[in-house]
Amino acid sequence: MSKKNRIRLFSYEILYENVSYVPSDAQIHYLKNVMRLTSGDEVFLFDGQNGEFRSVVADISKKSLTLQVQKKVYDFEKSPDIWLVFAPLKKENTDIVLQKAVELGVSKIMPVQTEYATKIQVKRERAELQITEAAEQSRRQDVPELLKTVSFDEMIKQWPENRKLIYLNETGKGMVFSAVASELKEPVALLVGPEGGFSKKELEILEKLPYTLSVTLGKRILRAETAAIAALSCWQAFCGDWR
Amino acid sequence: MSKKNRIRLFSYEILYENVSYVPSDAQIHYLKNVMRLTSGDEVFLFDGQNGEFRSVVADISKKSLTLQVQKKVYDFEKSPDIWLVFAPLKKENTDIVLQKAVELGVSKIMPVQTEYATKIQVKRERAELQITEAAEQSRRQDVPELLKTVSFDEMIKQWPENRKLIYLNETGKGMVFSAVASELKEPVALLVGPEGGFSKKELEILEKLPYTLSVTLGKRILRAETAAIAALSCWQAFCGDWR
Repeated sequence: MSKKNRIRLFSYEILYENVSYVPSDAQIHYLKNVMRLTSGDEVFLFDGQNGEFRSVVADISKKSLTLQVQKKVYDFEKSPDIWLVFAPLKKENTDIVLQKAVELGVSKIMPVQTEYATKIQVKRERAELQITEAAEQSRRQDVPELLKTVSFDEMIKQWPENRKLIYLNETGKGMVFSAVASELKEPVALLVGPEGGFSKKELEILEKLPYTLSVTLGKRILRAETAAIAALSCWQAFCGDWR
Repeated sequence: MSKKNRIRLFSYEILYENVSYVPSDAQIHYLKNVMRLTSGDEVFLFDGQNGEFRSVVADISKKSLTLQVQKKVYDFEKSPDIWLVFAPLKKENTDIVLQKAVELGVSKIMPVQTEYATKIQVKRERAELQITEAAEQSRRQDVPELLKTVSFDEMIKQWPENRKLIYLNETGKGMVFSAVASELKEPVALLVGPEGGFSKKELEILEKLPYTLSVTLGKRILRAETAAIAALSCWQAFCGDWR
């Protein structure tokens, strides 16, 4: 690797210059036992509100470790207001979706149990750790929120109507991204169905709602996790912060 | 799953209506022992040249199986002329890149050994099977070619100069896709570096070549496999067959 890998952690407390931060137990384990840091070693901390700070290991004993926060190195920057709504997949594919969505700058992630989705639950604690880790590694300044898993009907019932819901339509009926980019401005959510697609009933409901838009990603069949990554990438390039 | 999963296989022989096809040993194993097909069951075959044909299991015995090709169901359609050049990654991430690149309609895949790439070799036979399988499942009509792994210097030395080489630049200097889409017309190759990025020397070489173009996918750090998927998706949406 060319670049020295900076150690970068999310801070569960709001940070300021010249405070100290006591990492979580898992973070202390990581810094002490995995990275084997010693007194004076550098750790970058971001708090999702005030920005990113350089800190150093100040106090280290058998069980504890404190970080002394020094200078702010980056101002806080909010990621675009784009949600990903996806049907839970087999475990490793859900892992891929969560990790990549964070890298691609999603702001909220909502699992939705559609008719043909696997019945596998998204394990909340594990998923939140993965999301936080992906945020740390992608150097974004905020950690996306994992919303609670809802059924398709609940999702529709509670949908905030000022947010456009863009669903990926595998039936070939959807519009291409380039043709509708001007309608995809924030706030937006991208909805990706499961491997089996949406049911006929779900498609009928989606078609009729006033805040939905149907898009297509070409004629080839994409796996659900590929479709989620591809859709987020296209949105970033046409409407988000890759412009 | 809503849709009956069609069994779809690549044919290693060129197909016509009313011929018979003897599948490879691996395909016979799959049809007989995994899918447990019996006489008269339907299999779709595509040959990468004449299109896709419906066939049925005609002859089945303990060790052999023959498919009787019937009607053509889809004409052959070539995928866009877009190559992916990528630095080999850890095994599971190379798997992800190969599978997703095929789904996203790549035409050739070239592994390139850059300075900071892992030294892990792409295992040719295994990779070709993965590529074929992904083509079968994505319902594309052709199977992308896996070119042999080359060093960075060899890649440059043998580069076909009529093909634009778009490299993903992590230094923040690249152009955004939307700004250069008109220059990204076929034939094009997307070059994605390893986790550690390109070396300074490699970047200097890339910058000076007349057929290269440097693009960026935003400020967040993307893993190499995410960058490959994102870049192919953007290319398809701006320049390829997702328009």
